[in-house]
Amino acid sequence: MRHVLSLVYKCSVFSKYRPVVCSHFHIRLTHKLRLEQWGSNKLHRKIKIPNPQREIIMADPKVEAILAPLRAHVKEQGDLVRKLKDEKAPEIDIKKAVAELKARKKVLEDKELSLAPAEELFDRAKMEDLIKRRFFYDQSFAIYGGITGQFDFGPMGCALKSNMIQLWRKYFILQEQMLEVDCSILTPEPVLKASGHVERFADLMTKDAKTGECFRLDHLIKAHLEKIKSEKNTSAELKAEIEDIIVKLDGMTADDMSGIMQRFNMKSPISGNDLTPPIEFNLMFNTQIGPSGLVKGFLRPETAQGIFVNFKRLLEFNQGRLPFAAAQIGNSFRNEISPRSGLLRVREFTMCEIEHFCDSKDHPKFELVKDTPMLLYSADNQEQGRPAEIVTIGEAVAKGIVNNETLGYFMARIHLYLLAVGIDAKKLRFRQHMGNEMAHYACDCWDAECLSSYGWVECVGCADRSAYDLTQHTKATGIRLAAEKKLPAPKQIEVVEAVANKAAIGKEFKKHAKVINDALLAMDNAALENMQSQLDSTGEYLLATPNGEFKLNPSLISVKRSQKTVHVEEIIPSVIEPSFGIGRILYCVLEHNFRMREGDEQRTYFSLPATVAPMKCAVLPLSGNTEFQPFVRELNKLLTDVDVSHKVDDSSGSIGRRYARTDELGVPYAITVDFDTTKEPHTVTLRERDSMGQVRLPLVDVPVVVRDLSNSKISWANVEEKYPKFEQQETKGAAA
Amino acid sequence: MRHVLSLVYKCSVFSKYRPVVCSHFHIRLTHKLRLEQWGSNKLHRKIKIPNPQREIIMADPKVEAILAPLRAHVKEQGDLVRKLKDEKAPEIDIKKAVAELKARKKVLEDKELSLAPAEELFDRAKMEDLIKRRFFYDQSFAIYGGITGQFDFGPMGCALKSNMIQLWRKYFILQEQMLEVDCSILTPEPVLKASGHVERFADLMTKDAKTGECFRLDHLIKAHLEKIKSEKNTSAELKAEIEDIIVKLDGMTADDMSGIMQRFNMKSPISGNDLTPPIEFNLMFNTQIGPSGLVKGFLRPETAQGIFVNFKRLLEFNQGRLPFAAAQIGNSFRNEISPRSGLLRVREFTMCEIEHFCDSKDHPKFELVKDTPMLLYSADNQEQGRPAEIVTIGEAVAKGIVNNETLGYFMARIHLYLLAVGIDAKKLRFRQHMGNEMAHYACDCWDAECLSSYGWVECVGCADRSAYDLTQHTKATGIRLAAEKKLPAPKQIEVVEAVANKAAIGKEFKKHAKVINDALLAMDNAALENMQSQLDSTGEYLLATPNGEFKLNPSLISVKRSQKTVHVEEIIPSVIEPSFGIGRILYCVLEHNFRMREGDEQRTYFSLPATVAPMKCAVLPLSGNTEFQPFVRELNKLLTDVDVSHKVDDSSGSIGRRYARTDELGVPYAITVDFDTTKEPHTVTLRERDSMGQVRLPLVDVPVVVRDLSNSKISWANVEEKYPKFEQQETKGAAA
Repeated sequence: MRHVLSLVYKCSVFSKYRPVVCSHFHIRLTHKLRLEQWGSNKLHRKIKIPNPQREIIMADPKVEAILAPLRAHVKEQGDLVRKLKDEKAPEIDIKKAVAELKARKKVLEDKELSLAPAEELFDRAKMEDLIKRRFFYDQSFAIYGGITGQFDFGPMGCALKSNMIQLWRKYFILQEQMLEVDCSILTPEPVLKASGHVERFADLMTKDAKTGECFRLDHLIKAHLEKIKSEKNTSAELKAEIEDIIVKLDGMTADDMSGIMQRFNMKSPISGNDLTPPIEFNLMFNTQIGPSGLVKGFLRPETAQGIFVNFKRLLEFNQGRLPFAAAQIGNSFRNEISPRSGLLRVREFTMCEIEHFCDSKDHPKFELVKDTPMLLYSADNQEQGRPAEIVTIGEAVAKGIVNNETLGYFMARIHLYLLAVGIDAKKLRFRQHMGNEMAHYACDCWDAECLSSYGWVECVGCADRSAYDLTQHTKATGIRLAAEKKLPAPKQIEVVEAVANKAAIGKEFKKHAKVINDALLAMDNAALENMQSQLDSTGEYLLATPNGEFKLNPSLISVKRSQKTVHVEEIIPSVIEPSFGIGRILYCVLEHNFRMREGDEQRTYFSLPATVAPMKCAVLPLSGNTEFQPFVRELNKLLTDVDVSHKVDDSSGSIGRRYARTDELGVPYAITVDFDTTKEPHTVTLRERDSMGQVRLPLVDVPVVVRDLSNSKISWANVEEKYPKFEQQETKGAAA
Repeated sequence: MRHVLSLVYKCSVFSKYRPVVCSHFHIRLTHKLRLEQWGSNKLHRKIKIPNPQREIIMADPKVEAILAPLRAHVKEQGDLVRKLKDEKAPEIDIKKAVAELKARKKVLEDKELSLAPAEELFDRAKMEDLIKRRFFYDQSFAIYGGITGQFDFGPMGCALKSNMIQLWRKYFILQEQMLEVDCSILTPEPVLKASGHVERFADLMTKDAKTGECFRLDHLIKAHLEKIKSEKNTSAELKAEIEDIIVKLDGMTADDMSGIMQRFNMKSPISGNDLTPPIEFNLMFNTQIGPSGLVKGFLRPETAQGIFVNFKRLLEFNQGRLPFAAAQIGNSFRNEISPRSGLLRVREFTMCEIEHFCDSKDHPKFELVKDTPMLLYSADNQEQGRPAEIVTIGEAVAKGIVNNETLGYFMARIHLYLLAVGIDAKKLRFRQHMGNEMAHYACDCWDAECLSSYGWVECVGCADRSAYDLTQHTKATGIRLAAEKKLPAPKQIEVVEAVANKAAIGKEFKKHAKVINDALLAMDNAALENMQSQLDSTGEYLLATPNGEFKLNPSLISVKRSQKTVHVEEIIPSVIEPSFGIGRILYCVLEHNFRMREGDEQRTYFSLPATVAPMKCAVLPLSGNTEFQPFVRELNKLLTDVDVSHKVDDSSGSIGRRYARTDELGVPYAITVDFDTTKEPHTVTLRERDSMGQVRLPLVDVPVVVRDLSNSKISWANVEEKYPKFEQQETKGAAA
């Protein structure tokens, strides 16, 4: 969890620190399955992956009977939270009630998952073995002992990732005509001060008082308490207390955790030494830009700020018109205290982020997606103990479950993209953030979550951020980040503006004069009214600027009111932000597509969609016979000509063994050159990975057939209809 | 320049620090044109871009008469350098002779460029205005005052860059079936210690002794001396001395520069304060990985090391076979002391790097490229005062100008790629590094240099690195990074190996035992022989390991010799490394494709090849008339269906003005919807950017026509043949 500071919170690793957002809940990385520990102990145990959607569709009366009291329990607390909010109860009371609501919700969700009918058995250790063995990805710098939370993508992982990104570019940048940018990773401190990251992007940790070893505090407490809980002589009462603490850990402050450390007399689990009180640890990597060592910089923790600081240029590029969307693909960095769960919590990761700037929340293309059915887990359902529901996005917007068309449009597009890269529709849901703040602006946030052996993993965030970021950067720089909109008719307005005596200000404040003038220009009406009243009452006004505060008096500044005819109005646009964690999606895609051949558990493979598969096909000469070589070269050339990525596997080993190897790599099609190929007309066999079906077709046809299969222009069924089946069976147990 | 430390050197910004390489010359960033200052003073002066190739092809006798004595002057010195090398003269004498050779070479090259017939006038300020105005790229964080040496790519620059990278991926990774990897940017210190970067990747700087302001020393000296030189009362003698110093600056050591600072009594140009003696400043950005602050890390200064540390995994992925090539596309970081020249010297940049691992330097595909004519500037020609020459790469390899086929193959592929992205063939040369070391392994290095208004810019390095890096990482980790090759017949060999008394070592050195055993395993025969002789003579041996030195004696270790039959031999492969600086290529592509319409200098545009142009076409409704909208939407959809990137420009402004705008963006084709479009059969006009020619064709035809034009499947001439010309002329001076 991230450290909560007042009403501000940080979501999970991937989702971002969001300074003002509708909920102060911590979105946990995962709603962990009880069975998680089975996977992480590295034994070849199998993890039961429940099918939550099936449960929803065909609610089993027996299951529902078990869940009913738990649902009621959540609902009771949800109602209490609402009541407190309606009554505008003190913040602290609401917070407590929400923590209890979360705890009850977790109990319900764990029970739901444990009762869901198992659809398949998933063997994480086996998949991890395949990932490592075929170098999809692996720990960075392993020959130097490795660094936790950093991964290198090998040829197959890199190609999969790159194909996922290319498809993203097509889905979003090309089809939606977004403005793609590519901004600096190294970011100077003032930018991240304005965004709030310098002050608040932190986790709590504790250190061994003697050795200085660091521990992430929530992880440490959890491990410590679970150990106590598992001891024989622990009373049932203490066990219940521990369970309660663990569930509520996510929402705890530094003081809460400090109390627990004392209550259980916690020491370093390694050395037994004392631990320091909780320390806030900022998760940004810092460095110095330039040789002086004086310009402090950070590696960006998200790509979004690069778009916001370029808002004016982008608006101008779009000829001053709203709406428009900017997008960025790039790496971000977070100095996790204790990275874990493979690609799910890392220190360096690729994000694809969109900032859609708009003045109206209607969307002209909403009509095109409105019938998309999606599994939505609304805040209301969460608070009322009800399960997620399948509804069309059109219905969800019409009923107000999803706040507006633009948000709904992006949710549907995210949904479609995730399915296209290979996420299993049955293991995808959109969960709404629950709100317990009175947001001072319209706000809604939905996370696309994928079910994995680690539980539900947040893969894409889709938030309505309102005007927050542009406002912050305007305040920090004095440069107005706003758009102008033509009014239907000119209108008379009262203008309030600061009239600065520039000569006097220049004389008095010298090099600070520019900063002062910028700050005056950036003041809005309310600030100006306030300045006027202070100047009137006390004869002075303290102006805050990036260079510090300056005392102004009526000889330097006055406030002027006048009438003006305006033809345009100034708008600080709202921002809808879909934010994709590519590594997390990639991991879930691998899990959702990991398969074992029926009856042969050693023969594992990835059933990846051809669009994102690392390569589209393999070319396999039946043997090392030199007669095959010209045909292999010919295929190589023809496939390259039509841009079909492929791999020639002319290594020794039976054809079955080489099929098994291409299956492991997730390659959907294999072309085999055999003795019949050498006869005229030259033909080859084409094999489809999932069905293992084969057809015989002319060599010259095959490149275009594979290309069209890969682009989904034709299906395997089409190919089987058109070309004769090739009957030779693959032998069982042919895997290496 | 980079600081020279003994025989080790660092090339220019983009090219990498290469610890052991054939030349200790500094490759200057640019061989600057005399006229450079014309551009950098931001006035609208024009820079004469010479056409060096034309000069070479049609050597003008008058020009040659002027150059002849300069050529002879270079040759004289080149001959001296050779003589000294042959005589194995002292290192210091060779160095001095080489510095003088460089100085003479520079005088010749400057004269050559100044005499070359001007082909065109280039207005850098005008191009920079267009780049900024249409947001190809611009300074990062400008609203916060900006950071030098960091740039954000806007929509057009980003699309151009992304298209260049996609084409690179196709040219190299797909067509050559390379293994692409995507490795971590954050790199722990031991990795970069092994590669030599921690110790030696440094520039010299000096600081204002009072304010701490930093200056890059060579830049400072140059500016200081140029000022003195320009003063009226400076003697001709001093002027000549200054010229000589400036030319030799690149090769100077800290002591040399310190002497110059004293000789000219240099002070801070800003404050007049004293300056510190030269300080070595490491150019890597450092940070801490993890919360303890104890794990020191750097942002990688090149992507190559990520490939080397994954060598074992990649070799295994390639089923243990050589040759294979790995490639990586990603960002690298260098904390330049004073970034300058726009995209040419920056702190954060994208590289595409290839490491081709091989045991033989023959290349099976060399035949396919051998007839490619290239402009080669060999070390020999440089030393002999001769100009660069056009030869085919086949001839160059046959004559031994280029060391081997593999190097030659990559040089030709680099050449073809650069032409494909829009580099002007007349402004491209391959310059060989000159050698003044006795390299202890075969080694050759060629830089692809593009001529720009900043002079010749090194854009791609292509080096034969031999086994250097794998050997270094083997030494540092004790893990042998080598391949095995099957011998034609089994052979008897003498095996020398360390026989460690593991129990005794464990007892004596405890936790260091593993490191010691690893170090023993990594010793080669020569090292073992040396150990044996020391053990014999002194009774002890000092073993160097990553954990420090350990004293071994005969009770702990002995050396065993035996005969063994082996079927394979171990090979540490050679590495050929083509390394592309994408930002630099992009800048040169923009310069080479910047155009003004004849007779209208205000109407500037980029004549970018369609393959890399930011968008392939624009869709322009003649006016805001609502009748046009359905056709615009239809085109939008059809173009998206065939993956043609495009932009709808339905802003107000005459059609001529909008053509001018799409020209500025480098968009090669424009489709116009007008009143005739609304009639059946629906037709539109299609306009080609460079010729401004237009044809009329059916609306439904146009998406595929634009796609095929963009893929170079058809030419504009084909289109003009097939469809009727559209005659309406564009009005002159239609630019905004």
